[in-house]
Amino acid sequence: MTQSPTLPMTKRDLLSMIGKSAGATAMYMAMSSFGQAQASTFKGPIKLEGDPRGASVLVLGAGVAGMTAAYELEKAGYKVQVLEYNDRVGGRSWTLRGGDTYTELGGATQHCTFAPGNYINPGPWRIPTEHGGLVHYCKLFGVGLEPFQQNNYNAYLHSTKAFGGVPQRYKTIQADYYGHVSELLAKAVKKSALDDAVTAEDQAILLESLRSWGALDKDLKYVKGNASAGRRGWEKGPGGGLTAVPIPSEPLDMHTVLNSGLWRAIGGNLAVEHQYAIFQPAGGMDSIARGFDKAVGHMVRLNSKVTAIKQDARGVTVEYLDTRSGAKLTAKADYCLCCIPLSILSQIEVQVGDSLGSAITSIPYLPGLKVGLEFKRRFWEQDEQIYGGITSTDLPIGQISYPSYGYGSQGPGVLLGAYANGAYAYEFTTLSPAERVQRALAFGSQIHAQYQSEFLNGVAVGWHRVPWTQGCFAIWTEESRAQHYRNLCQMDGRVLLAGEHASYIGGWQEGGITSALDAIGRLHQRVLAS
Amino acid sequence: MTQSPTLPMTKRDLLSMIGKSAGATAMYMAMSSFGQAQASTFKGPIKLEGDPRGASVLVLGAGVAGMTAAYELEKAGYKVQVLEYNDRVGGRSWTLRGGDTYTELGGATQHCTFAPGNYINPGPWRIPTEHGGLVHYCKLFGVGLEPFQQNNYNAYLHSTKAFGGVPQRYKTIQADYYGHVSELLAKAVKKSALDDAVTAEDQAILLESLRSWGALDKDLKYVKGNASAGRRGWEKGPGGGLTAVPIPSEPLDMHTVLNSGLWRAIGGNLAVEHQYAIFQPAGGMDSIARGFDKAVGHMVRLNSKVTAIKQDARGVTVEYLDTRSGAKLTAKADYCLCCIPLSILSQIEVQVGDSLGSAITSIPYLPGLKVGLEFKRRFWEQDEQIYGGITSTDLPIGQISYPSYGYGSQGPGVLLGAYANGAYAYEFTTLSPAERVQRALAFGSQIHAQYQSEFLNGVAVGWHRVPWTQGCFAIWTEESRAQHYRNLCQMDGRVLLAGEHASYIGGWQEGGITSALDAIGRLHQRVLAS
Repeated sequence: MTQSPTLPMTKRDLLSMIGKSAGATAMYMAMSSFGQAQASTFKGPIKLEGDPRGASVLVLGAGVAGMTAAYELEKAGYKVQVLEYNDRVGGRSWTLRGGDTYTELGGATQHCTFAPGNYINPGPWRIPTEHGGLVHYCKLFGVGLEPFQQNNYNAYLHSTKAFGGVPQRYKTIQADYYGHVSELLAKAVKKSALDDAVTAEDQAILLESLRSWGALDKDLKYVKGNASAGRRGWEKGPGGGLTAVPIPSEPLDMHTVLNSGLWRAIGGNLAVEHQYAIFQPAGGMDSIARGFDKAVGHMVRLNSKVTAIKQDARGVTVEYLDTRSGAKLTAKADYCLCCIPLSILSQIEVQVGDSLGSAITSIPYLPGLKVGLEFKRRFWEQDEQIYGGITSTDLPIGQISYPSYGYGSQGPGVLLGAYANGAYAYEFTTLSPAERVQRALAFGSQIHAQYQSEFLNGVAVGWHRVPWTQGCFAIWTEESRAQHYRNLCQMDGRVLLAGEHASYIGGWQEGGITSALDAIGRLHQRVLAS
Repeated sequence: MTQSPTLPMTKRDLLSMIGKSAGATAMYMAMSSFGQAQASTFKGPIKLEGDPRGASVLVLGAGVAGMTAAYELEKAGYKVQVLEYNDRVGGRSWTLRGGDTYTELGGATQHCTFAPGNYINPGPWRIPTEHGGLVHYCKLFGVGLEPFQQNNYNAYLHSTKAFGGVPQRYKTIQADYYGHVSELLAKAVKKSALDDAVTAEDQAILLESLRSWGALDKDLKYVKGNASAGRRGWEKGPGGGLTAVPIPSEPLDMHTVLNSGLWRAIGGNLAVEHQYAIFQPAGGMDSIARGFDKAVGHMVRLNSKVTAIKQDARGVTVEYLDTRSGAKLTAKADYCLCCIPLSILSQIEVQVGDSLGSAITSIPYLPGLKVGLEFKRRFWEQDEQIYGGITSTDLPIGQISYPSYGYGSQGPGVLLGAYANGAYAYEFTTLSPAERVQRALAFGSQIHAQYQSEFLNGVAVGWHRVPWTQGCFAIWTEESRAQHYRNLCQMDGRVLLAGEHASYIGGWQEGGITSALDAIGRLHQRVLAS
């Protein structure tokens, strides 16, 4: 196993990792758009039938995967102990709010000063409907879910290279893209260019559908008028009385829409994991950790830094450090379910065979950055009628996400001022937290001029400086899946891995949950058979 | 003015109205898809500057339009009195919950027995972001807004004529329609059929965009694979551990998608008034009435049925009946702002000129029906993973809408079991309320088999039997707009009309608000000038 690199990383380490990670990020983005990171196998509560006859399991890591396993194993009759590095459960399922303190690798400490009720989720922040496992545990533990605004048609698409840097409303770009696509296809059909592909009967239906879907006029053209304005918005909206008559807006021409590149945002909103209905836990993502905590807290030993995982034919021995007292301690059990991220596990002595050992050290982690910015007021709602949702930009901040809670409230508001990946995330994180916040503020000002006058404070979490993960989540490629995935998931003696890294739903809590359920199912069969 | 027809209506009346209304409904639907009923002129709070020197205004109807006018007129210094037929304010902005009683024309009384917290909004139920006037008054009066699920990709599209009547998930139909449209357009581009319309440079971008938007493969085909499954859903979703590998689902072929007609639902979800973010008042639409009530309640006389509106050079006199005591009473003021729906106003003696008089009697009202059904449990969430949103069907119920509140709760749940318009609404409303509920239940069972075993109770509001409106909202056509709209909105002596019927945002509360603001602005100018 490799040993931990000296921290903080040297510039060479950084650049080398940027290189690797830029490719990995691109790969993840491609994978994501190709649907790898979506939906779930979850089909209902797991049933572990049969008596484990006192078998004990040591679970490492009290994130969502570890807590799922601990809960179900205890329910099935196992003796369970969980070791957790942090002074809280939840792992990356985490919320920062006023009063919280966070110290990253390198020692920089941030004191969050958000007003009461405001927060950001530095890690996962959304729960798609299809993530049935997570939804199940939320219900089980009384975690209230509220809608997350994913695709707000009133939010912006922004490119520094289009429209002179002026942000465009999502609805105008999508409506115009759909309008031009439908007009072009109608034109091709009418000139008989698709007679070999579509029957005459289907052509008639197709044209009717294009008119309806694309908001075309009676001649199947996408033109200025009530039809297009009803999708893209009005020059002057309809009203009442004698000032009622609306004035349509002028659509963008096709060349402008295509060349803006802003159409790139549309596909992402159609992906299964971004489709409505999509939720967030009311009050912050750590509601999930608090929900689990009630059920598994009694099994968890906090402030416990695992330093070695050893096993023999009779059981596992885990060495760990009490991070408060400095005491070196040992825990033993019949089996170990290790939910520690590979980015950390690869720095720990683990007694496993070559195939698992090689898998553990071969999977890079996505660098990511989230910045929460608090402003004196919700100017995005009050001035720009943006209630929740996401503005996408080609600036290094990647996106701005407006809070999906407290709509219309009058006090200070917190938005997600950056969600950057890959090289941009590294660049940001080389700066001090205060400088990261200033940088997010400077970039965001190009989209919202109110940033400078309304800013109050911010926090910035660069994930490769988060002590307990040193990265967002595992990046798999087609090649690494083929070479390492099954090895990573196979039980090695008495040690078995789980977590989002041991799933096909990488980067989502559902990956951790389905991975944990799959792992304990196999563990249980092994115990019953032994 | 015409007098009220004897009620209940004869079959001949009904059939005649069905005939008229089917056309009108079709026209409204066409108008709606052409964007007439959207957005708003609202640009911020109205400022009525200048002293009205004690002028008085009698407002008829304490719906959203009347209350908006009363609030703003009193603030500007007017003496304001409001007469309201019902024993509550709000008009069509109304909520039915357990304990409520409702008696329709014809005398049938329904006692709503929904469990605490459950409700339906028989009238308006949504607040689009663009309806800035309504959003303004909600903020002003502390009405909490929460997201409304409009377009839930997990809800169904259902046609009795397609897929053997088996409902299809919205996401599969949309993904497959987009996939086939993009593949066809890519094919046309590649065979140079659009070289006259798109430059070579733009063609390259267009193809790239089609691949991204339509989830096409590397050959620009829409085929079974991770790309399409990431939009339409999986045969077996991805998971964790050794059961992780997902299996893509098989897309529908183009002919099937086109011939199903289910693509018709997509365009409606792209319309400005249905675009995310879209809201509902937390706790029911009557939160809006309660909000206004705090500010205008002291001006409102409830249980007051207007029987005549008279005017001369010195003022207006309104005759009304106290519906509790039966007393005939009179109210006087300098001006009258009449917000009574035309369907009712056309049955009242109104002293106005021919042009306004003719306008009042010329505009038909949409028949509509809403049925609320309570079930023992939220089977749509628990069994089918549908959290809010709308299932569309060609059955007479039109749609099923799942509650956008209380997600995941364990007790009984109420869904909107029918929202029918036109002839279907008439047919439904000829039945007794209990029979309407049974009919909605029978139709809905074709979509949700659980209906029969889980049903508890229901309420059914047929809008042309609602005593205070006898219809949903005014139906304008291009012809009636040209002939009557300005006449309807012009001040006639001392009488001026407002309401959604005097707007281009028909059927939405924003129409009532913008109409009221436009009307009182003109009234105020008249007062200052006199």
